[in-house]
Amino acid sequence: MSFQAPIKDMQFVMSELADLTRIAALPGYEDASPDVAQAVLEEAARFNEEVLAPLNVIGDQQPSTWKDGVVTTTPGFKEAFRQFSEAGWQGVVHPQAFGGQGLPKLVATPCTEMLNAANLSFALCPLLTDGAVEALLTAGTEAQRALYVPKLLSGEWTGTMNLTEPQAGSDLAMVRTRAEREADGTYRIFGTKIFITFGEHDMAENIVHLVLARTPDAPAGVKGISLFIVPKFNVDAEGKLGARNDVHCVSIEHKLGIKASPTAVLQFGDNGGATGYLVGEENRGLEYMFIMMNAARFAVGMQGVAVAERSYQHAVAYARDRLQSRPVDGSSRDAVTIIHHPDVKRMLMTMRALTQGARALAYVAAGQADIAHHAADADTRQRAQAVYEFLVPIVKGWSTEMSLEVTSLGVQVHGGMGFIEETGAAQYYRDARILPIYEGTTAIQANDLIGRKTLRDRGAVARMLCEQIEATENELRAAGGVATPVAERLAKGREALSVVVDYVLANTQDNANAVFAGSVPYLKLAGIVLGGWQMGRALLAAQKLRDQDPSFYDAKIGTARFFAEHILTQAPGLAQSITEGADSALSLSEAQF
Amino acid sequence: MSFQAPIKDMQFVMSELADLTRIAALPGYEDASPDVAQAVLEEAARFNEEVLAPLNVIGDQQPSTWKDGVVTTTPGFKEAFRQFSEAGWQGVVHPQAFGGQGLPKLVATPCTEMLNAANLSFALCPLLTDGAVEALLTAGTEAQRALYVPKLLSGEWTGTMNLTEPQAGSDLAMVRTRAEREADGTYRIFGTKIFITFGEHDMAENIVHLVLARTPDAPAGVKGISLFIVPKFNVDAEGKLGARNDVHCVSIEHKLGIKASPTAVLQFGDNGGATGYLVGEENRGLEYMFIMMNAARFAVGMQGVAVAERSYQHAVAYARDRLQSRPVDGSSRDAVTIIHHPDVKRMLMTMRALTQGARALAYVAAGQADIAHHAADADTRQRAQAVYEFLVPIVKGWSTEMSLEVTSLGVQVHGGMGFIEETGAAQYYRDARILPIYEGTTAIQANDLIGRKTLRDRGAVARMLCEQIEATENELRAAGGVATPVAERLAKGREALSVVVDYVLANTQDNANAVFAGSVPYLKLAGIVLGGWQMGRALLAAQKLRDQDPSFYDAKIGTARFFAEHILTQAPGLAQSITEGADSALSLSEAQF
Repeated sequence: MSFQAPIKDMQFVMSELADLTRIAALPGYEDASPDVAQAVLEEAARFNEEVLAPLNVIGDQQPSTWKDGVVTTTPGFKEAFRQFSEAGWQGVVHPQAFGGQGLPKLVATPCTEMLNAANLSFALCPLLTDGAVEALLTAGTEAQRALYVPKLLSGEWTGTMNLTEPQAGSDLAMVRTRAEREADGTYRIFGTKIFITFGEHDMAENIVHLVLARTPDAPAGVKGISLFIVPKFNVDAEGKLGARNDVHCVSIEHKLGIKASPTAVLQFGDNGGATGYLVGEENRGLEYMFIMMNAARFAVGMQGVAVAERSYQHAVAYARDRLQSRPVDGSSRDAVTIIHHPDVKRMLMTMRALTQGARALAYVAAGQADIAHHAADADTRQRAQAVYEFLVPIVKGWSTEMSLEVTSLGVQVHGGMGFIEETGAAQYYRDARILPIYEGTTAIQANDLIGRKTLRDRGAVARMLCEQIEATENELRAAGGVATPVAERLAKGREALSVVVDYVLANTQDNANAVFAGSVPYLKLAGIVLGGWQMGRALLAAQKLRDQDPSFYDAKIGTARFFAEHILTQAPGLAQSITEGADSALSLSEAQF
Repeated sequence: MSFQAPIKDMQFVMSELADLTRIAALPGYEDASPDVAQAVLEEAARFNEEVLAPLNVIGDQQPSTWKDGVVTTTPGFKEAFRQFSEAGWQGVVHPQAFGGQGLPKLVATPCTEMLNAANLSFALCPLLTDGAVEALLTAGTEAQRALYVPKLLSGEWTGTMNLTEPQAGSDLAMVRTRAEREADGTYRIFGTKIFITFGEHDMAENIVHLVLARTPDAPAGVKGISLFIVPKFNVDAEGKLGARNDVHCVSIEHKLGIKASPTAVLQFGDNGGATGYLVGEENRGLEYMFIMMNAARFAVGMQGVAVAERSYQHAVAYARDRLQSRPVDGSSRDAVTIIHHPDVKRMLMTMRALTQGARALAYVAAGQADIAHHAADADTRQRAQAVYEFLVPIVKGWSTEMSLEVTSLGVQVHGGMGFIEETGAAQYYRDARILPIYEGTTAIQANDLIGRKTLRDRGAVARMLCEQIEATENELRAAGGVATPVAERLAKGREALSVVVDYVLANTQDNANAVFAGSVPYLKLAGIVLGGWQMGRALLAAQKLRDQDPSFYDAKIGTARFFAEHILTQAPGLAQSITEGADSALSLSEAQF
């Protein structure tokens, strides 16, 4: 089943919801006109559809393999990565000074989505490299940036993030990897890192590991973690490869999905210590790692949108083709294709509405990131940054959680064929399952939403967003007709969100356990309401543009209405569970489970 | 991770919710005293925990294999099946006259649950044999029953159901397999059947295929389907094996889960025709097959409960063991086991509440089946039969859909380890995915719930159940305290269900598409409300029994409250989607998707 990038919807969201025109007018983005954006999207679509999408199923059937420390990737990956790099896709969002294209995140985001929809496993390598670039640009020395970033953007080298250890997953305070200072200013690194995505592979000549470790005199906990560059091959000042560093891949994992992506166990320092180079200052590693993580979290949210889109397309194609059963309304005595059965329509609409809602919210967030970096006015920048940071855990958490529901429906639409691996629907169901786990589980995102994003500013951003939603409700009411019930559902959702924000603000200090028992439902509620808001805005935009392409815009209006009637309707129940259900959620002791 | 049968909860449900005492007093069940039931459960627990549970992961790693038409099952399965058969587990619910134990379905149901929790793949062989026995007992001739049933109960032979063909899945009207009458009264069978569970294997000396096919002069559609016995080896009147029949396994499927269970493509008649023996009358095959299917649908519902229970136990064990992060309430400076984190508690409570609610509803349904067969009074039998038939699609549909949510949470509780196959959590996630598909997808169950179970009696059973729920609400209100909010949530749920039943009754004739667009949400709503009702009843019973075992009964009370606050709260939103959301669900044309 071939993949077709949903360019038309992407452009609609960019232009109508995420304000591409405004962003293209920001200082530094003068080259990013809507025409350029369209050309970039079309080129990305061609490349991902033709080169990467066909490798997706091959990667599932012929995963990366490990032998004697060497990882061989899926046949075709190495060549595809060469093409990917040569076309400059690694650098879309990065500075032109280092070989990137310097385009807005809003333009890079649909490219990321396409890449992931085409091939989730493959896309992880550039995703991690992006994070490494981001960290080096922010915290690296000028020499480090000059040495590493161009090679990372050219695809000669790739990057990794080395956080997790067997005893340290969500809790980085438990990191034990040691970094011992040498006289020459370098460090010797000793320890074991697990779950390192593309921690070893054959697609590039070198791998730049960014590694969290502790110096001997570091304070305990997260305030004693430093960040180090540990290249697979040591490099000289000109970037020429030297000796093999003392970091080795001792195994890769046998996983439920994303099988082509090698998940490595890396052993540092078994032969005297791996040479590491400090990034920034000692003991500020976590701070730098958060730079990588925020970029990576947003990107994982896009993975959720991407795999949902791919699963949706697969299901639609099957539903258009599969002939089974007469219509329930008796309109034909012959079997029809299943896309005509109401429950199949309901499943496809659910997949479609969730995917489009999450896409819209993510692109809007990307636009805020661009404004935060490039707006002329400091207040504007700051406000946009706060909104972006509020949205990141929601984009990550909600988009990935909804991708589980969507890919599961994708299997269900196929009936028995969905359970047969050759059909392909099951791969998305398996691949998607990692998304709400890595780069911070949904609970970790929800903790972030409560702690750093709601409590710290006393709900200021949350309340500002609620006001904006209310404005959209008023516009929908003014539009009337089919927009009226959408306004009412959105109002109920916004009220539910508002009640929960107040509850979080009022209770976290005195009853943290109760509030955190509702943390993931709060995140889900926020995703539903903010996604529903964007779909409400989409409805209004589609009504204005309808005559240009009635079929497309009517579908958008129908999808927005579906979101309101079938997804926003969950909001009040979620709010009740959060505000009244903590006591029962916490009622069992360890022994009683 | 070892499996422990939840005997205490099973006995609680049997005694307090499903009225075991009354059922054990029914004519014909004199031997089924609560003491006997307890002994049976304990023996079943021992066997399933020790023999079958350890083979579950082996079956996933070493699936059944096909070579030259011969299927070799997972190492250990053949010997385990011998032990299973010798201990008499195939015959628990079947008549003593044929070698069964003649126990109530209420007692057999926890045995079925344990078997499936221990080993879902293995359990499918007995599940299908049960269906074949049921069909032969109902529609077979005396000679057929005498010849086949004892061999099926002894495990010398096993049974299959042959419905599906490549073009005929949910829609059996499209069955094409041919049956040509011979002069001696037998038939020659020609055709291809797919998705035949345990359609070929090495655990028994013969396989009794029950096959849907058409005679040459049969009417079109489902009224022209007949049911045939097609043994793998022909047998003489004494049951001695004769020549190999012309039915061959041409391949088995490569599946997402339940990999140890061979899913066969069977080819009938490539060498002149497979010998088939008519069951009952020609053209009544679908009716007989429904006998098998109703038993099988209930059993698949139990598979949902079973895999949910297994996944829950796995997650609890990990959560008790895994040390990570300090408590959010700051009560310790050290990391704690994750079972103490509020969101992990919420996930485990969700798994637990859904599993216990679905178990309770299914056991209550099983008790109704016993009353329907054994009550002295015809009216009582008829009423119980109607309730049982109403509940079957809900037990099948809701228990299996909730098992997707539960097994997904089971992965999530494990964090990154959940995605690694060796951990074992992912197997349940994969295995469960078939349950809402086979033996009739959730949409097919929902069609049944609307057509045969709601419209046919004009909502009589649905309304009677709503009245009984209302009585429970009153008891909960009278109990006061923590029972009061449970009463309120249950009342809101019951009102939502009632509104939807009225909507279905009022609109199906004139607007079938709209009603069927809400069919699966209606089934889900019914499951939630009826499951919540049983949990409300459980709360009341637990309050009465509390002093006998405060820890157990307090946990039951807490779980019932959780169900009300976190699951019943979804009911009003579902009702809104059903009654107001059809228009948007149906708003896109085929081309617009």
